[in-house]
Amino acid sequence: MREVGIGIVGLGNVGSGTLAILAENGREIARKLGFPLRVVGVCSRSPEGKHLPAAFDGVWRTANWRELVAHPEVDVVAELVGGCGVAHEILEGAIAAGKSVVTANKELMALEGPSIWTRAARAGVNLAMEASVAGGIPIHAVLREGIAGDWIQELSGILNGTCNYILTEIEKHGTPFETVLAEAQRLGYAEADPSADVDGLDARSKLALLGSLAFGVEIRPEAVYVEGIRRISPMDFQYARQLNHTIRLIGAAERRDDGILLSVRPALIPTTALLSHVNGAYNAVWVKGRYGSDTLYYGRGAGPEPTGVAVVSDLMRVARDLQCGGPSRVAAFGFSRVGTGAPISILEKQAAYYLRFRVKDRPGIIAALASILAEKKISLEAVLQEPCDTKHDLPFVITVEPTSERSIQEAVARMATLDFQVEPPLALPIEPLQ
Amino acid sequence: MREVGIGIVGLGNVGSGTLAILAENGREIARKLGFPLRVVGVCSRSPEGKHLPAAFDGVWRTANWRELVAHPEVDVVAELVGGCGVAHEILEGAIAAGKSVVTANKELMALEGPSIWTRAARAGVNLAMEASVAGGIPIHAVLREGIAGDWIQELSGILNGTCNYILTEIEKHGTPFETVLAEAQRLGYAEADPSADVDGLDARSKLALLGSLAFGVEIRPEAVYVEGIRRISPMDFQYARQLNHTIRLIGAAERRDDGILLSVRPALIPTTALLSHVNGAYNAVWVKGRYGSDTLYYGRGAGPEPTGVAVVSDLMRVARDLQCGGPSRVAAFGFSRVGTGAPISILEKQAAYYLRFRVKDRPGIIAALASILAEKKISLEAVLQEPCDTKHDLPFVITVEPTSERSIQEAVARMATLDFQVEPPLALPIEPLQ
Repeated sequence: MREVGIGIVGLGNVGSGTLAILAENGREIARKLGFPLRVVGVCSRSPEGKHLPAAFDGVWRTANWRELVAHPEVDVVAELVGGCGVAHEILEGAIAAGKSVVTANKELMALEGPSIWTRAARAGVNLAMEASVAGGIPIHAVLREGIAGDWIQELSGILNGTCNYILTEIEKHGTPFETVLAEAQRLGYAEADPSADVDGLDARSKLALLGSLAFGVEIRPEAVYVEGIRRISPMDFQYARQLNHTIRLIGAAERRDDGILLSVRPALIPTTALLSHVNGAYNAVWVKGRYGSDTLYYGRGAGPEPTGVAVVSDLMRVARDLQCGGPSRVAAFGFSRVGTGAPISILEKQAAYYLRFRVKDRPGIIAALASILAEKKISLEAVLQEPCDTKHDLPFVITVEPTSERSIQEAVARMATLDFQVEPPLALPIEPLQ
Repeated sequence: MREVGIGIVGLGNVGSGTLAILAENGREIARKLGFPLRVVGVCSRSPEGKHLPAAFDGVWRTANWRELVAHPEVDVVAELVGGCGVAHEILEGAIAAGKSVVTANKELMALEGPSIWTRAARAGVNLAMEASVAGGIPIHAVLREGIAGDWIQELSGILNGTCNYILTEIEKHGTPFETVLAEAQRLGYAEADPSADVDGLDARSKLALLGSLAFGVEIRPEAVYVEGIRRISPMDFQYARQLNHTIRLIGAAERRDDGILLSVRPALIPTTALLSHVNGAYNAVWVKGRYGSDTLYYGRGAGPEPTGVAVVSDLMRVARDLQCGGPSRVAAFGFSRVGTGAPISILEKQAAYYLRFRVKDRPGIIAALASILAEKKISLEAVLQEPCDTKHDLPFVITVEPTSERSIQEAVARMATLDFQVEPPLALPIEPLQ
């Protein structure tokens, strides 16, 4: 069989990781495929300045992606630029040129995935996107092939390594959020503007994509309810521990008869759940199927080489399909027909909740809060208080039995207006994960 | 696209689970594929007596697998009979008839996999075996596609649900092995003859297959060093806990420059490792790649429906390949060339070890044991003893720093001859898993 020609656009972290693997692991790749992958050319803004692995010393470099895409020996284009600008043009340009494409682009696929898939299918080329979600975890292969026969009911994941690193540091050392964030920024684990990570927006794009892959429906990131982790403090981990739980930023998608419920938010999860033991910059996705019961997939969420493995694995699959005569296997998100998922409002969610207060202590506080809960027909489960001698800023926690998010949000809004509150109450769902 | 015809041979647990999924989940399956899977016929020894899902009321039934395989509308044959007798004939017969095959047969693929793969490749048909290892975990899809670009260094798994159930029951309740086994037999979790499970033979076949899938080498089950769990007692979990570890039956395959090290044995694993939180009848596989770092895959190891998901997912993949013009993707264990793995003797293994003794107490015991360790150049790390007042049967534990299995086995053999021993020392490796 002939070799398959690869063009790489984008020589940042992911591009470098991809090239390193193609250079060092070429023999193993060819032993698997039965033919080699050949890097025909690479493209970046200033390609001459880039250091490439020695194996690619003589490889053709260009700053013009159109030239690369048009090159007759390029069979597959890897778009590793990121973002929704030129990356979109590159994918569309490659598809229009009849080239199969591999992308690591989470934002673009979350926003424009269905239309790009449709274009690829019409052009009869393949599209692969393993690297776009949870880089080191082959969750796309799992959903598309490994457990394709199942009916996925629910999926919950730890999808942002920066948030998970910050939360586990707060948990381990009792350090406040701001201090951990500053340290993470110093170490390069968090961006100078950390909003995309700590406010849950990155996880939101990933959850939208995972939901599309699991349920075969188009999910807009805006349909996902999102809350970040800025309000989580060391005392929340102390209270969670008293309840045999911990706190993680959980992206959750649930397929119900009336639609799809989507959220990214910090939640209490039991220490008996494997997800509670996912620490540091790791990601994990827990999947509940109607037939296969629950499975979990764990690995690095990012990093040049883990993401590079996903890109190279996609290149191998697409190359194998090309050798087998063509990509008739193209199907958007693994479905021949993608539906429109009716998002269910988060207000319809049912859960038990953890309510954490900081108050100026005085008699009658619990009575005032309890009467609001009673009014909203919410059953109080427990009141927890860690020893504390700051009367002017006293933390305590109330847990309540399963109720609707609507009732909780209404209750919390009422509670926030009471004059003894130091800050608005923090409400977190208690997720009954296995 | 036309529908693809399926023939199912074997209507036991896995066959029933597969048919239930094909019946109930047919619409979702067709929505993914773009065409339906049609069950053309089923075969079992007494097919008329079997209860089938209502959707398959009128399906053709036969007791003659040759008829089923020869049926012109059967495109893919699912061999769900198990064992190495007629199942082998069915696979070879189907391949000879030019039919693609799906199998759930662990023993047969572990023993005859390479020759069956070769036959399938020559015949130009596809062979799929996701259900043959860790039923509910799509580990074959992961290794074949999801992380295909990586170089797998090492793989460690909890591969036998019965053993894991027994060990976690001993851990949770402090109940002796025999009592837990008897209860597991009563509940149907363990066979009347439990040897294949508790002596590690089932896990051995699975490890041989996983090693072949990860490294692309032929691994005979006999090349795997095996020890069962019969000697693990509640006190071992107490001592392990003191060391912040627990005990699991671990199947491990490691690719080294000089060959492949393979073992199935109980081992101490740290409570910081995700594998230590895998409880009950669940399985998990931890994979270490040179580029992708570590990933973990978790789910049900067996059961009609989780295994059925694997079979149906394979049927979908094979059917899709047939629609795309043929199975040129056949490659044994996912490799175009399968090597011969040189097994390394377990005696070459390097690890820290846990040595547990039961002795008739008298002065000089530690001195006698320590001098044997010194003679073998093994460094003693710690001596642990739980409070105990039975002088005639006193348990205690010695941990030693990393050394070779050869030294440990020699030391333990010498120690076993000392007259104060109530039973031979138990030696378990302490695995530094993440």
